[in-house]
Amino acid sequence: MVPPDTTVSSLPHARWWRAGVVQAVSPPGVIDLGPGYLEPSLLAVDEVLPLYAEALTEFGPAALSYGHNAGAEPLRALLAARHGCTAEEIMVTAGTSQALTLLCTALGRPGRTAVVEHTCYDLARSIMTDHGLRLREVDADSEGVRPQALDRALSHGDDVAFVYLTPTFHNPTGTVAGVSRRRELLAVAARHGVPIVEDDAYAELSLGRTAPPPSLAALAGRRGVIRLGSFAKTLGPGLRLGWLEAEPGLIDTLTNRGQLVSGGALNHLTSLAVAMLIGDGRYDRRLAWLREQLRLRCETLVAALRAGLGESVVIDRPAGGYFVWLTFDPWRSEESLLAAAERAGVVVAPGSRFGSADGTHLRLAYSLNSPDRLAEAAARLAAAWRNEETLR
Amino acid sequence: MVPPDTTVSSLPHARWWRAGVVQAVSPPGVIDLGPGYLEPSLLAVDEVLPLYAEALTEFGPAALSYGHNAGAEPLRALLAARHGCTAEEIMVTAGTSQALTLLCTALGRPGRTAVVEHTCYDLARSIMTDHGLRLREVDADSEGVRPQALDRALSHGDDVAFVYLTPTFHNPTGTVAGVSRRRELLAVAARHGVPIVEDDAYAELSLGRTAPPPSLAALAGRRGVIRLGSFAKTLGPGLRLGWLEAEPGLIDTLTNRGQLVSGGALNHLTSLAVAMLIGDGRYDRRLAWLREQLRLRCETLVAALRAGLGESVVIDRPAGGYFVWLTFDPWRSEESLLAAAERAGVVVAPGSRFGSADGTHLRLAYSLNSPDRLAEAAARLAAAWRNEETLR
Repeated sequence: MVPPDTTVSSLPHARWWRAGVVQAVSPPGVIDLGPGYLEPSLLAVDEVLPLYAEALTEFGPAALSYGHNAGAEPLRALLAARHGCTAEEIMVTAGTSQALTLLCTALGRPGRTAVVEHTCYDLARSIMTDHGLRLREVDADSEGVRPQALDRALSHGDDVAFVYLTPTFHNPTGTVAGVSRRRELLAVAARHGVPIVEDDAYAELSLGRTAPPPSLAALAGRRGVIRLGSFAKTLGPGLRLGWLEAEPGLIDTLTNRGQLVSGGALNHLTSLAVAMLIGDGRYDRRLAWLREQLRLRCETLVAALRAGLGESVVIDRPAGGYFVWLTFDPWRSEESLLAAAERAGVVVAPGSRFGSADGTHLRLAYSLNSPDRLAEAAARLAAAWRNEETLR
Repeated sequence: MVPPDTTVSSLPHARWWRAGVVQAVSPPGVIDLGPGYLEPSLLAVDEVLPLYAEALTEFGPAALSYGHNAGAEPLRALLAARHGCTAEEIMVTAGTSQALTLLCTALGRPGRTAVVEHTCYDLARSIMTDHGLRLREVDADSEGVRPQALDRALSHGDDVAFVYLTPTFHNPTGTVAGVSRRRELLAVAARHGVPIVEDDAYAELSLGRTAPPPSLAALAGRRGVIRLGSFAKTLGPGLRLGWLEAEPGLIDTLTNRGQLVSGGALNHLTSLAVAMLIGDGRYDRRLAWLREQLRLRCETLVAALRAGLGESVVIDRPAGGYFVWLTFDPWRSEESLLAAAERAGVVVAPGSRFGSADGTHLRLAYSLNSPDRLAEAAARLAAAWRNEETLR
């Protein structure tokens, strides 16, 4: 028996959970471990509900005016305190994908090169290639990109706009670079004079008690690093709110572009609403709760997969984020694994979507389903893949 | 005596009306007719205050999820009904400047050409040149761009990405193209196979009882026209919400880009909040009130300028929007008119900022001050410019 679908059908707002309102709806009857979405019951509806009225009461018409181009100072100051920098090193964005779009137009130009991890977030690649950037891929190991490989990639004589890295809770692999690795990567990029764009959308979602290592931006004092943060993964993507950390000179460059001078802050009212949440500790309480929910889901999925699959698959339990990365024997075919999962009523994401070419991998999101359903999904997948193995 | 500054100092939230929160603050002690801003008391604080809680109550977690890439259907359906098209011809944007940015990257490419009115919104030009587009300017008359001039501009053999036009309540000149003119412009662009981007940010702000002529998009059934609409000028720019009307095929192209596939709807929660306002008639009541406030301000400014300046300046009373456009004798120097205004404690916008080169022009915004202060500003300007005339 499938555990009840708490993702949608049991919710009072089920009728709005359909194509036309939200971006994508899971196929009926399946357990969806595909996208990097939060289970609806984990989205911050209760926390966000009072915020906009609070912000309009506190800030009055200033909250509806054109906002300061780099973002309203109340949120910039709160973020600066959280991330150990100055408010002048913070710019409010409309989320990581918007920030990356802005960087591609400000730093890129068709024909220039972006250096990326050979396995990385597929839609970041799309944003770069949409702007005419060529991609050069770099090998990675269990701590992400290898410094020697980055050095070689930057020695090809390309006109490199930036290096795009995810050193913390990597999507899709879940890897975390240690402090030494981080310092080595910074040194290589600095030697070549190339900025690093650090995608840190999952950084606040550590599943353990210890925080991840300091960000590249923090280690470098933001010199030569542009760090992208987001509230999409911690509160809800419908807010369209994030921030970036960078040198004040670069923030001046970004905020002096026509789009910003014309429209002002990229999401002004929402930035003041979220400032209300952070300012009095509600955001941190929410984060602690969400991390516990994600930890429980991750543990459930990993334990059930290990119980069902034994040693035949490498299952790295991630230290944070939304995803488990599975590594199969290289002779296993991604297509047949996906097909077997589909027959079992479970959706998973193929490693090839993220550029992976060094074996057979699948990405499983534990963020979009209840622990019961994750256990059921793992049991189905283990049975399906054992069968698929005997049938091949 | 200067009438009280209702724009800021008398408001309970005056302390937030400062650099760091909002984009720009008027210099102390002056009457600011420069930017296309609304007076704070005209921003829709009371109307917006309950909306987000209403949207989260109605839509639940679907309002915080990734939104449908083209925008949530409830708002698309309401906008389609208002603008006489189908929901498939509507895409929700984060405002006109964001929409124009999206179009520049999707339709443009460094080295391609955008054809623009020789006098037009300066920051639209900046957005285009930020994306490497070259600008080719077209002459205009009292109905905006002349079809013959457009035809010539499109016959140069440039690789034209689009034509950017503001046929309704033009910024800065206030002109409105009649229906025949609109049909002629459409015919010229269609003959050259070049799309028109129609900036209609002020279209809902007619000051009279009659609506402006149908949009280019409506006349063309959206074939070859992309119309940009905004809630910045009717509710408040801090929302960062607008929409565009276009052929469904083009909307598919825009929404299949990495930024949209990654982040979903460009401002999802806010789009559902504003849908609550439109859905039960509150938006239309707000519009009627705002138009009356703007009509009163426009009449006050124009009457006081005419009383003070007589026949020496052509003062076109606009039919809608935020601005009065002044045409001086060509021998009058823009610099000396600006300097005289500044000495009198009034900020106005120079015509040259908008590319105007066919005489001496100034743009005066009547949107940012109370009628009393507008009358005072007009009296000061008339005195200053009469003196400036005798002193030259």
